[in-house]
Amino acid sequence: MINYYQFFSKNACKMKKSEIRELLKLTRKPGIISFAGGLPAPDLFPVDEIKEITNYVMEKEGKLALQYGPTEGDTGLREELLKTMKRDNINISLDQVFVITSSQQGLDLVGRIFISPGDTVIMGKPTYVGAIQAFNAYGAKMYGVELDENGINTKKLDIEIGKLINSDVKPKFIYVVPDFQNPSGITMKLDRRKELIEIAEKYDLIIIEDSPYRQLRFDGESQPPLISLNSERVLSLYTFSKILIPGFRIGWMAGPLPLIQKAIIAKQSIDLCSPPFNQSILAEFIRRGLLDVQIKKIIGFYKDKRDFMLEMLEKYMKGIDGVKWTHPNGGLFLWVIVPDHVDTSEMFLNAVEKKVAYVVGSAFYSEDGGHNSMRLNFSYPTKEQIEEGVKRLAEVIKEYSGKERDTIITP
Amino acid sequence: MINYYQFFSKNACKMKKSEIRELLKLTRKPGIISFAGGLPAPDLFPVDEIKEITNYVMEKEGKLALQYGPTEGDTGLREELLKTMKRDNINISLDQVFVITSSQQGLDLVGRIFISPGDTVIMGKPTYVGAIQAFNAYGAKMYGVELDENGINTKKLDIEIGKLINSDVKPKFIYVVPDFQNPSGITMKLDRRKELIEIAEKYDLIIIEDSPYRQLRFDGESQPPLISLNSERVLSLYTFSKILIPGFRIGWMAGPLPLIQKAIIAKQSIDLCSPPFNQSILAEFIRRGLLDVQIKKIIGFYKDKRDFMLEMLEKYMKGIDGVKWTHPNGGLFLWVIVPDHVDTSEMFLNAVEKKVAYVVGSAFYSEDGGHNSMRLNFSYPTKEQIEEGVKRLAEVIKEYSGKERDTIITP
Repeated sequence: MINYYQFFSKNACKMKKSEIRELLKLTRKPGIISFAGGLPAPDLFPVDEIKEITNYVMEKEGKLALQYGPTEGDTGLREELLKTMKRDNINISLDQVFVITSSQQGLDLVGRIFISPGDTVIMGKPTYVGAIQAFNAYGAKMYGVELDENGINTKKLDIEIGKLINSDVKPKFIYVVPDFQNPSGITMKLDRRKELIEIAEKYDLIIIEDSPYRQLRFDGESQPPLISLNSERVLSLYTFSKILIPGFRIGWMAGPLPLIQKAIIAKQSIDLCSPPFNQSILAEFIRRGLLDVQIKKIIGFYKDKRDFMLEMLEKYMKGIDGVKWTHPNGGLFLWVIVPDHVDTSEMFLNAVEKKVAYVVGSAFYSEDGGHNSMRLNFSYPTKEQIEEGVKRLAEVIKEYSGKERDTIITP
Repeated sequence: MINYYQFFSKNACKMKKSEIRELLKLTRKPGIISFAGGLPAPDLFPVDEIKEITNYVMEKEGKLALQYGPTEGDTGLREELLKTMKRDNINISLDQVFVITSSQQGLDLVGRIFISPGDTVIMGKPTYVGAIQAFNAYGAKMYGVELDENGINTKKLDIEIGKLINSDVKPKFIYVVPDFQNPSGITMKLDRRKELIEIAEKYDLIIIEDSPYRQLRFDGESQPPLISLNSERVLSLYTFSKILIPGFRIGWMAGPLPLIQKAIIAKQSIDLCSPPFNQSILAEFIRRGLLDVQIKKIIGFYKDKRDFMLEMLEKYMKGIDGVKWTHPNGGLFLWVIVPDHVDTSEMFLNAVEKKVAYVVGSAFYSEDGGHNSMRLNFSYPTKEQIEEGVKRLAEVIKEYSGKERDTIITP
């Protein structure tokens, strides 16, 4: 037998199968209602339009779309993306817009161009698990700062960064998901955004703004994107996965030119360029005004689901002591806190037994934390599944939290 | 002004714009005949078939093709790929086949799972420039062993690895492109393949077999893929870019299960999965038997171009002292050696002035070397361009090599 382990890099030795993914496999059993996924609703996918536009692109520029393309992306697509960003008061130039193979690749590129092993990065607590994985692969030390209902706690952020800098540790960047954050659904309020920018200026730092859900706002007032408040210190990541379809694996990155240029060089050895075929179709899709139509459709559909999930949480969980949840104004997720003595990882198998699933909150913590929390997705399940699933989940929490309490009270 | 440089990782600080890419920009001027690219001929792209199959896939499984997919790739596509590999006497199982976002991503994954900074890897001299870039990004020390007309010199390889191991340096892998190598066009003969495997066994090493051109054999006897000779020590990379279209950015990887499993985990934080849309179309394309048709078409077309380029080299360069070239049995490239006192980098601007371009040989060396060599592509230019381009190139070499000699003779 060959010992393959000897060939692995130090980083590869540390790579493990994601526990969440292993847990998620359990949720694929028949009859289980899963709030665990992050999948967009496939019924909304514009299958006919994609088909028709592919025909058009093949007829008009098939050879070009099937050939290699430039690393920075298709110019036509980049122009359309720039226009959509300008409507959001983001004032940058075309060479600051860079097409990537999914925003996950954006996170990988961020890791590659900024993180040397041992470098410190700052993020929310909780935060997107894919960012934790990407930065981890480059050996980052991740430092979490709590969120409250208005976004990352900027007072704490200021104090913590101050402490780090006093002990000669300069963080490489602050990573945030300002709109309808994954996993919490929380949106940063304007004053928080301004304070965050001020902190970046005070300590001479850059901010990574991850924006997969921004366009999916159901209600409440739109808050300006961080990059529109300071285009010199903010690098933003976007994706088509949530506002259109994930199956194309196309996203984009916008930010200060020196950072974009470095990321483009890095991408050359990663995959040369993102698929020109997919990019040509997307450019034409936006050109025809179909992206706006699609986003409007998604918003209506997801808002309805969010409303219904909030209603069901109210109906089935209101009576349970110590249980509360967020009220997101957009996105795909909400966040449930259960009593402090309940560990949602331990409760997970009970939930699966009752045929309902969630993502355990601790998955979204780079350090310890979040043991009594969980992420629920409302974009994918049907209303019937939402009602039945929330009902089952309420039963599991009631039963489990009662049981645990008994154990604590009568040892 | 913000000092962005302070934020970059150690690796990013070392990343530079590729000199070749900068040189290639010069070749885009009007009137220049370029043998520099590595582009497949777009006239052969099966635009109509791709269009028709996209329609079919959208109608049959549109929602699935536009959703997220598994990290290891679409099962239907993997089954088709396994079948094509079985025809090449590669006996592996389905879970050893892994879909990647271009074989460049395969090289990046190889870097990620095997190379820690300072690790030594062995490769041919010359070798594929994209591999040099990918391994460089992970801080590899690259060690080149010369090729001769039968492939990598296995006697030297044995001696050099022996020396390294005696000085306590165990290389992480041996990287080779056994069929119609990029850049040289050279194919490893069977005895060399067997010797290479023996060396890997002797020193307990693994081999990375990069196979983008294997299916494009015009003549001569097919040599068995390395992975068919030893499936425990060989990890193979493939791509659709040269045998079908590059615009989909889809490739695949096959090898020992523990290595594939590690690569799949690594890919999760890189881009989650390769585009399911593109994978569904490719699976159907192969299912319909169209890939074989396409490969046959490409072989006929490229063989004709290779024959013509060899004929033109014979016609215009035979008389020039010290100039010789390889006679590839397939692929896209051939390799020209010019007199030792000619530096093809220095000659490059003269060539561009004469409106002909190539890739300078030194680009394909991880260390110093190859100053008097160049890569020529025969797949992309038309026959008219091949004749005129070779004629111009011959003039440049004649003129330049004469001039240089004068300089040397009369100092």
